[in-house]
Amino acid sequence: MSSSPASSTDVASTNALGYPKLQPQHPVPTDIQVSQQIVQQVGLLPLSDLAQQLGLTPDEIIPWGIAKAKIPLSVRDTRRAVPNGNYVVVTGINPTPLGEGKSTTTIGLAQALGAVRGRPTVACIRQPSQGPTFGIKGGAAGGGYAQVVPMEEFNLHLTGDIHAVTAANNLLAAAIDTRIFHEDAQSDQALFRRLCPPNKPFSPVMQRRLRKLGIDPHKAPADLTPAEQSKFARLDIDPDTITWQRVLDTCDRHLRVVQVGIGPNEKVTPRSDDPGQPAKPRVQHDRVTGFDITVASEVMAVLALARSLPDLRDKLGAMVVAYSRAGEPVTADDLGCGGALAVLMKDAILPTLMQTVERTPVLVHAGPFANIATGNSSVVADEMALKMVGPDGYCVTEAGFGADIGMEKFFNIKCRASGLKPKCAVIVATVRALKMHGGGPPVSAGKPLQPEYVQENVELVRRGAANLARHVENAKKFGVNVVVAVNQFQTDTPAEIEAVRQAALEAGAYDAVLANHWAEGGQGAADLAIAVEKACADNDEANFRFLYDVNLSIEEKVNVIAKEIYRADGVDFSNTARAQMEKYEASGFGNLPICIAKTQYSFSCDPSAKGAPTGFRVPVREIRSCVGAGFLYPICGDIMTIPGLPTRPGFYDVDIDENGGVVGLF
Amino acid sequence: MSSSPASSTDVASTNALGYPKLQPQHPVPTDIQVSQQIVQQVGLLPLSDLAQQLGLTPDEIIPWGIAKAKIPLSVRDTRRAVPNGNYVVVTGINPTPLGEGKSTTTIGLAQALGAVRGRPTVACIRQPSQGPTFGIKGGAAGGGYAQVVPMEEFNLHLTGDIHAVTAANNLLAAAIDTRIFHEDAQSDQALFRRLCPPNKPFSPVMQRRLRKLGIDPHKAPADLTPAEQSKFARLDIDPDTITWQRVLDTCDRHLRVVQVGIGPNEKVTPRSDDPGQPAKPRVQHDRVTGFDITVASEVMAVLALARSLPDLRDKLGAMVVAYSRAGEPVTADDLGCGGALAVLMKDAILPTLMQTVERTPVLVHAGPFANIATGNSSVVADEMALKMVGPDGYCVTEAGFGADIGMEKFFNIKCRASGLKPKCAVIVATVRALKMHGGGPPVSAGKPLQPEYVQENVELVRRGAANLARHVENAKKFGVNVVVAVNQFQTDTPAEIEAVRQAALEAGAYDAVLANHWAEGGQGAADLAIAVEKACADNDEANFRFLYDVNLSIEEKVNVIAKEIYRADGVDFSNTARAQMEKYEASGFGNLPICIAKTQYSFSCDPSAKGAPTGFRVPVREIRSCVGAGFLYPICGDIMTIPGLPTRPGFYDVDIDENGGVVGLF
Repeated sequence: MSSSPASSTDVASTNALGYPKLQPQHPVPTDIQVSQQIVQQVGLLPLSDLAQQLGLTPDEIIPWGIAKAKIPLSVRDTRRAVPNGNYVVVTGINPTPLGEGKSTTTIGLAQALGAVRGRPTVACIRQPSQGPTFGIKGGAAGGGYAQVVPMEEFNLHLTGDIHAVTAANNLLAAAIDTRIFHEDAQSDQALFRRLCPPNKPFSPVMQRRLRKLGIDPHKAPADLTPAEQSKFARLDIDPDTITWQRVLDTCDRHLRVVQVGIGPNEKVTPRSDDPGQPAKPRVQHDRVTGFDITVASEVMAVLALARSLPDLRDKLGAMVVAYSRAGEPVTADDLGCGGALAVLMKDAILPTLMQTVERTPVLVHAGPFANIATGNSSVVADEMALKMVGPDGYCVTEAGFGADIGMEKFFNIKCRASGLKPKCAVIVATVRALKMHGGGPPVSAGKPLQPEYVQENVELVRRGAANLARHVENAKKFGVNVVVAVNQFQTDTPAEIEAVRQAALEAGAYDAVLANHWAEGGQGAADLAIAVEKACADNDEANFRFLYDVNLSIEEKVNVIAKEIYRADGVDFSNTARAQMEKYEASGFGNLPICIAKTQYSFSCDPSAKGAPTGFRVPVREIRSCVGAGFLYPICGDIMTIPGLPTRPGFYDVDIDENGGVVGLF
Repeated sequence: MSSSPASSTDVASTNALGYPKLQPQHPVPTDIQVSQQIVQQVGLLPLSDLAQQLGLTPDEIIPWGIAKAKIPLSVRDTRRAVPNGNYVVVTGINPTPLGEGKSTTTIGLAQALGAVRGRPTVACIRQPSQGPTFGIKGGAAGGGYAQVVPMEEFNLHLTGDIHAVTAANNLLAAAIDTRIFHEDAQSDQALFRRLCPPNKPFSPVMQRRLRKLGIDPHKAPADLTPAEQSKFARLDIDPDTITWQRVLDTCDRHLRVVQVGIGPNEKVTPRSDDPGQPAKPRVQHDRVTGFDITVASEVMAVLALARSLPDLRDKLGAMVVAYSRAGEPVTADDLGCGGALAVLMKDAILPTLMQTVERTPVLVHAGPFANIATGNSSVVADEMALKMVGPDGYCVTEAGFGADIGMEKFFNIKCRASGLKPKCAVIVATVRALKMHGGGPPVSAGKPLQPEYVQENVELVRRGAANLARHVENAKKFGVNVVVAVNQFQTDTPAEIEAVRQAALEAGAYDAVLANHWAEGGQGAADLAIAVEKACADNDEANFRFLYDVNLSIEEKVNVIAKEIYRADGVDFSNTARAQMEKYEASGFGNLPICIAKTQYSFSCDPSAKGAPTGFRVPVREIRSCVGAGFLYPICGDIMTIPGLPTRPGFYDVDIDENGGVVGLF
């Protein structure tokens, strides 16, 4: 990778990487128009050249569809000796309907560091869920002149990772219901005979269960005692404890709660342990359950936190889906599924390489929900990026939602899993969004903005900046330098921007700079890039620290986050939550980090409490577990895990034009 | 492509294509072992070389994952002037649990034509459903030394086409339930206002609906009369007529019948047309429906029959999912979805290129169910293959199930859609399977075979050959030359094999030859290849004819198939089926070809009626429609559209080994 910084007086037609300089149009066209113009008029960098830019040999990339490639994990593993690059996380204030541009800033900053400043840089972002693409949400490729291209390739299917998660999740779901179905109908002996035909040795996944049960895994099936056979074969799942849901990457509200197994063939003749007894009448094998959107699956959370294929295999197998009637956790491996899930996910563990409009590299990988999961892209993509850019380079990674959620989980969960140490956090804010935090009127989609948002109102900005200030203070608790990026809108005035800057610096930000990458590409974020470079150079990764010790009790850990990050007065655990904490601690899951599921719109659990609320408590209704992924997630408020479609979904605009091109996708 | 035929005395270490000769091991290892040995020891042909073998330039292939590439449709379109190659369909006798090896013969024959005989040859096969991979079924990549490699890449995910079908199918399903939900709650005026915001012109998909309704599509939304607005906005779907199911590529019996929409938020406040009236109480918006396995989706059937991206777009939009309360068909385009479905399927329309163990090219594309759909791979893959191989070459394509189903649909539906004219049909039979058709005892999975199947019993073979003979006669009705391939098993005796040959020739087969490609690769099917070459040379594609005129009534068309192919005495239509025929003819769907859904195990509708049954009638319980794909499918007997998992599913064996390799996949 070239590392010659561009001179500020450079008027050449090429940028710091030697590519044609971006020629932004004004007004900025729609996202899909920008993307298609770049592809058609400037052209994409061939994948082999993109690989070369990263110092990869041709056999270190696997081309995977149109302008996409997967990168094998060997790229990271063969560079173990290379010192890591500078690790920068991009986060934001609490989101508002006005949009803050966190993804856009992640991409814009990477373009600035790479194409303008000539620093080896990789942006790491999440793969977006495809479901909302056709519903109400925009794309997630960034926007304007700070985006990943081709955006339709980014937003649709990508390289199939989310589809692999769907397949794995639903295989496990089918395995659960089917296992209960077969167990209900068969004696221990019949079950064991079918599971372990006498001519077959125990398969690897069965050996895992044998080890868990304390039975010698090298025995032949016939050598087990009848008691051991029963123990092995009967999982005795309590249907009321099943937490595993099915998933689809579709916005389908009618699947939120469903009753399955109501067909005429899903009846079971209950087993009779006394062969002399008359056969019992058949009973319907139905159950009320639900679907989540795929990115809410624990399989996705595992993908984001796994460090290697064997680690992925272990984590998938360790996922707890239910408890036995005796209270023992039942895992995917107990169901015989862990290996198959890993095989389904073997390609998904490889990050996908794409490029920005300025031909700088982007790794897209994993996209777990930001409330019930970590909301951060994968550990392996960041690890790979840090090795590829080397000590003079930058890995710019994005954390979902606001800094109270995404950044906190980035530090306390993702960095704990990876062992990586970030040096700098970029917190994105906009004048408009801060006005809303300062008490500006509500905003409705499709209606013109109220005057507060389009006319100067420094006081509103100042009041709202309390939200930003608290996030800055929070980030500093982790030992990173904080740079605030004020993502510019046309209506922002110099006085308003200065008010944001002042508030940020007063709160302890290392720097606060204006950025206009949406309209100008990397050039618009050049100052931001310089500030980030300085913030990294001025910090030692040894300063990085976690907010809590995982060996604290679950209750204590939740309290630390609630008080230190949200600034709550305290936490109220329901009786359910208290019982669950006891159960988890008894099952050996007490030392997992905490991944709080709460609204992203406020520091508190009340989405309407803007700014920097105080004097509130955090109610924990229940605590769920992702034992495979490795965290517990307290539920604070209503969390929706599969969206619906509005009366006029986005799909109405999406079509194929006469030239076979995609139209109407954002 | 090289076209120098190999001399039969050739003892060189390379085959007719100049690649290392296959070195089969005896006994033949498992399928995954053969595949992994070929990949590791012989190596795969780089995709660029495979493309070159087909006369493609490097920019005519799109590498897509590990040892796979997609081929753009331009490859076919820029070769319009090239005469087509010889078109050969591989089909079989009625299947038995003993397996006939149709996929294996398709691949083995292609290896023989290509690698042994040096003829430009492409095999075209279906993408298998991934669901059964983890249940009870084996792979579909062929087997032994006649298979597609790497088989784990073939069997898992491939290039994501089935996942795209899942996504498209389920987006449409969500659109249906959501639309009814929103229509139930909103007045015509409110609905129209939301669907057509005043500042937006009608989108392309809306213009399609306007044209259908006879409203000028160039009008602005505000210019519609209130009556036109109501007509446009209210689909008024009758929930009892919804035929669209959700799909998953998973064997999950508990999803066969489900009740959706039972969650607390899926309640709707019924609209009140009189604003003075008090609001009605909220009602639950639930419905009983079901899931199919993805390959049973009409979207998959469309993929298999579409000829181009615009044609795919039109067919997807034309899919009828329900009827309005007034009896009008409601399509995907009426729901605003057709464009989005096409965008989701834009990559899926491109066939996937892989290779055999002998480095000959294979196109894998589409995999519709063989009972409720056509059971044939795609039209576009065959078209592309015929152009790539040119007039001296061969496209060997496979049809699902037995010849009474897969071949009949291949000729009457697929060839009608494509306009392509096959010259030769290969009917695969085995001695063992014919013994079962001749009255041999039932076979149970996992139990040793009865002596009838492992000891010589010529009489049983002769009796069972009646099944083969009838398929041969049937195939000849379409004007093709028929070659019978006797797929060899170790226990077959010369007298038994001769009995099959005799029966085939007596029934009018052009030739009947022994083939042993499973154990020997292409060399084992060299005689079969020679017979196929002669059969093609000896036939004129002008001889090809359909069995019925689509302009006959539905009843007449069903009767032609039942009598000419199954040899039934007649057809019994239920009252439901008669009412449906009337409805379809009234809706303008009467001239679609017929795709009968019946058991594959017998000519009749009774799976236990082996051999060549007579004196039976075909009961048609109901007739469903695939208006987008372009056929009607009468249901004759119980058709299961989503399998379940056994007590010990195949997934128990699948795992990742210490080197990261896949184990236990067949």
